[in-house]
Amino acid sequence: MTKTINEITITEAATDQMSGTPDPRLRKIMASLVRHLHEFAREVDLTADEWLEGIKFLTAVGQKCTAHRQEFILLSDTLGMSALINALHDKRAVGAATKSSLLGPFYRHDAPMMKLGDSIISKSPGTEVCFYGQVIDSNGKGIPNALVQVWEPDETGNYDLQKHDPSEMDLRGCFKCDAEGRYYFRGLCPTGYMIPMDGPVGDMIRAQKRHGYRPAHIHFVIGAPGYRELVTALYVAGDAHIDSDTVFGVSDSLVISVNKNDAKSPIAKMPTIHYDFQLAADKAWTSGRVGADPSQITSKIGA
Amino acid sequence: MTKTINEITITEAATDQMSGTPDPRLRKIMASLVRHLHEFAREVDLTADEWLEGIKFLTAVGQKCTAHRQEFILLSDTLGMSALINALHDKRAVGAATKSSLLGPFYRHDAPMMKLGDSIISKSPGTEVCFYGQVIDSNGKGIPNALVQVWEPDETGNYDLQKHDPSEMDLRGCFKCDAEGRYYFRGLCPTGYMIPMDGPVGDMIRAQKRHGYRPAHIHFVIGAPGYRELVTALYVAGDAHIDSDTVFGVSDSLVISVNKNDAKSPIAKMPTIHYDFQLAADKAWTSGRVGADPSQITSKIGA
Repeated sequence: MTKTINEITITEAATDQMSGTPDPRLRKIMASLVRHLHEFAREVDLTADEWLEGIKFLTAVGQKCTAHRQEFILLSDTLGMSALINALHDKRAVGAATKSSLLGPFYRHDAPMMKLGDSIISKSPGTEVCFYGQVIDSNGKGIPNALVQVWEPDETGNYDLQKHDPSEMDLRGCFKCDAEGRYYFRGLCPTGYMIPMDGPVGDMIRAQKRHGYRPAHIHFVIGAPGYRELVTALYVAGDAHIDSDTVFGVSDSLVISVNKNDAKSPIAKMPTIHYDFQLAADKAWTSGRVGADPSQITSKIGA
Repeated sequence: MTKTINEITITEAATDQMSGTPDPRLRKIMASLVRHLHEFAREVDLTADEWLEGIKFLTAVGQKCTAHRQEFILLSDTLGMSALINALHDKRAVGAATKSSLLGPFYRHDAPMMKLGDSIISKSPGTEVCFYGQVIDSNGKGIPNALVQVWEPDETGNYDLQKHDPSEMDLRGCFKCDAEGRYYFRGLCPTGYMIPMDGPVGDMIRAQKRHGYRPAHIHFVIGAPGYRELVTALYVAGDAHIDSDTVFGVSDSLVISVNKNDAKSPIAKMPTIHYDFQLAADKAWTSGRVGADPSQITSKIGA
């Protein structure tokens, strides 16, 4: 017998047809996704024209992605999904740890390895700052040889990936901590910027009359064998957008200030940003990366 | 003051930031979408790796779209979203009307205008059938000069858009009904087929161990000034997949049988498929099209 499909029974019809999915986790995720998507459509009584606008929008987001740009991550970021995934991840941590923040769409996996004290600035002008601190475990003990990956935008608010030749790297690097987990390096005093507004996500942000800015920040990915990888960022206190980040990345505990007269600076007479990162223990090295290098998602170069 | 964002407060933070959206309908839709998306992520405690799989999947769906292929419509179809939008649309009709069914990803807006009795078959072999009936209003009265657009796959289950040269048209046409709303034309006896399985949606269908078939059917878009456009399809009784359509398009009232000995056939000695389509009154000519010609969504030709 043909089942009668109406606006209610369609949901069970769809999840029934997916009920033979061999992977139990995929089965659970898809059933939940279908139920919530359908509930959304029923709640707003979505029309065919509105549905088609959604199809067009998602298609445009996909077609905007290239090996150097990830518009779907930007969409996730601006809908608060990425911050939510980070918060769920932090909740699963065993033991105290620094809060996660957004990886964003400008991470890349092949940043150059540098020595402690080196500068990540290769060509961009701006105010130099010494970033330093310690990578510690849940009990406050230094983690020897932890790997610190760092990247930040230039003074105009653009990452190297957004420049004319996105294969050239600037303002990113990897550092191996010393035997006590200490790190220090030179970089630019962090800058805020507007998210990329020339794609469909920018159209959405404008239609929502949002300002599109992120407060000044610098990104970190920190890992060590036996610890949970930490993906986070530090935000500069006093930024005009510190309370209205377009991608919801700011937490109180990640807000730092520049110290212009730091007697403990590892580099004499340089302003400092000091922060100790705390990692929770975990068997797996990488488990918390909400994002990826665009080139690892999109192999084809688009328009 | 910086707000503390956690896995619960992120939802209100996101909808708050969208609360200045000038268009009240967009504001409502986005707030509902964000709430349901977040609820989904919380319900399954979505991990960063799973989120990234989702980003990769959506990116691949977008990049598979071309002027001749709409993978996001296919995704909507296979998740039951398109059938749900149709059901919501039918519920809003004023007066009796034929049920909607999926437009699918193979409609095109520029099918040739033909005369009643013409054949839509230009090159494909197969069993010829005479399709005939009447386009009527909610009271059963014929609608003069209603426009009937029709398209169907060939005997191998492929539409013209899926062929080597997708600009060549076959098995589609437009007919103007007579003064009593009657139509008739020649076409192929409908065939079932597997949805396109060579893209990310096909990967999903395989991972869910679904068969991927649609039961034999033929598509219709029917309109007339002063009536609600009807997007529907007729399904052949007895098809092996009539109860398990991969895109949930079948309703009891849309199931028809081929009559091999129809004394009323407008074309002598030809098997017939007879169906009367009922349109609800509406000021707007087009209002129910859950879909569009791929070329109207994606201007750029992809890989």
